[in-house]
Amino acid sequence: MSKENSKLQDLTAENLTRHVIKTCTSNVSNERTTELISGLIQHLHDYVREVQLKPGEWEAGWQYLTETGQFCTPDRQEMVLLSDVLGISALVDTINSAQARSSIATESSVLGPFHNDADVLENGASIGSEGVIGEPMLIHGTVKSTDGEPIQGATVDVWETNGNGFYDMQDPNRDGPDCRGIFRTDEQGRYYLLGVKSVDYNIPNEGPVGKLLKILDRNVTRPAHVHFQLRHPDYLDLTTALYSSESDHITTDPVFGVKTSLVKDFQKFDRLPEKVLGYDLRSSPLAQPESVAKNGIWSLEHDFVLLRK
Amino acid sequence: MSKENSKLQDLTAENLTRHVIKTCTSNVSNERTTELISGLIQHLHDYVREVQLKPGEWEAGWQYLTETGQFCTPDRQEMVLLSDVLGISALVDTINSAQARSSIATESSVLGPFHNDADVLENGASIGSEGVIGEPMLIHGTVKSTDGEPIQGATVDVWETNGNGFYDMQDPNRDGPDCRGIFRTDEQGRYYLLGVKSVDYNIPNEGPVGKLLKILDRNVTRPAHVHFQLRHPDYLDLTTALYSSESDHITTDPVFGVKTSLVKDFQKFDRLPEKVLGYDLRSSPLAQPESVAKNGIWSLEHDFVLLRK
Repeated sequence: MSKENSKLQDLTAENLTRHVIKTCTSNVSNERTTELISGLIQHLHDYVREVQLKPGEWEAGWQYLTETGQFCTPDRQEMVLLSDVLGISALVDTINSAQARSSIATESSVLGPFHNDADVLENGASIGSEGVIGEPMLIHGTVKSTDGEPIQGATVDVWETNGNGFYDMQDPNRDGPDCRGIFRTDEQGRYYLLGVKSVDYNIPNEGPVGKLLKILDRNVTRPAHVHFQLRHPDYLDLTTALYSSESDHITTDPVFGVKTSLVKDFQKFDRLPEKVLGYDLRSSPLAQPESVAKNGIWSLEHDFVLLRK
Repeated sequence: MSKENSKLQDLTAENLTRHVIKTCTSNVSNERTTELISGLIQHLHDYVREVQLKPGEWEAGWQYLTETGQFCTPDRQEMVLLSDVLGISALVDTINSAQARSSIATESSVLGPFHNDADVLENGASIGSEGVIGEPMLIHGTVKSTDGEPIQGATVDVWETNGNGFYDMQDPNRDGPDCRGIFRTDEQGRYYLLGVKSVDYNIPNEGPVGKLLKILDRNVTRPAHVHFQLRHPDYLDLTTALYSSESDHITTDPVFGVKTSLVKDFQKFDRLPEKVLGYDLRSSPLAQPESVAKNGIWSLEHDFVLLRK
């Protein structure tokens, strides 16, 4: 044996982890990289030792991750969905939420896998295309600072499913963006648009994540909700969602996104409520008095409170 | 708020993990499934909390796993390679190795991502096709029980790179199986074949795993080795490899497969050594006395010891 070999250390279940971490970090100068990779190896190895992972289980694991990666398309992020159903997305959201440490600011919620580019629209516009399925719902309110000052020029990115429970990208009958749009608050800090009354829907379950939830016999239905992402140069970004208090799934959300402060009563009116009479709703036929008198209209109202940077 | 909502529990960094584990296991009757999923969630969540994972880091993580999954093809298992370079494969191998608990049995080593179907060949055949690159090397020895009894009829599945450091599936100039074959031990427990002298080679590094190793500034060169997988109905399967003591990378294997007992001296002869004169080598032109006199021949000899079931 050569001199080099005389230094060969036999790796055991006990010393392997230390050796792998050393190999991964000894040439790395970035401290955060060292911290992230060391912790990852330590926890993955601890897991393998703790459950005494069998070769067949290890194989099932890498096959599952491969399948999950291969299931992803530009319109379907199955790996994020996996992170969601394992509560990792909610945990990352929670530990990073400055809002959670404020008693006034609107709390954050998970982004989910269905955010996408959308058109910038004028307040009062409808985010649903003509012939959109579902009941019309006004989505409106203000964006304010923690002092109660209205914030003008904040962008409010809104997205939700169609009334059939599909996001545009999931719906074979939709080509382009639908039920999503980006608005800008006016000088009173107001945003207002016509959306669709949210419905409970099943997270997509024909892929690897669906297979996992089936094995675990877990609920796949999310409570009805509307997603929001708010941005303004002077304030912290906020990704959140508002959930319908009516839903039977409010306490069993498969992606762990619901927080009490984000649960709202969706209200139905048979005429436009006084509050919204100042809104310019000319571009939304379903928000015209005649239509409302005939079909009624739902209202989801929320005043968002942002933290100053 | 409905009655249901009054039960809504706000999830925090502290209680979320318990809630996710409960959600994942409360309908599961299989104890092993419960153990595997609970431990996985606990360790992933602990990791996120410990390193205080940032949203951008989380995003880089799911994007990396997606990319790794999408890089896989029937001929390239990048997810296994990722498991290999993080030492997970070696750990799973080690904790499951019955051989490691015996002082006599041949130790196991990692399978690696390049095992594939191969033809069953007669002892004495060459696993390299005509025109194979590299120096001829006899790979031979016996398969025995821990009592020293020869084991007849054991299958010895052998695979290695070509002399250019590529497995057949990586080599654009190779279509079918090459430098791999399955042999069966004779009545004396012997296996013997003509292979190629193993060379150090770089693990494939043009994909996501290569990107990671580059960030970590890690060695990508594996020490020269030959893979073996041995099976016999009465004995425990053994997946292992033999490593060349000559290699400069014996202590820095990027996939952590080397064990002292698996490091062998590859020997060069200018005529067939006496030991092999009883072998039927008629089907391998490069093992004929004239060729050996001209080019020499390498020898890798190993007696494998299997554990009875």
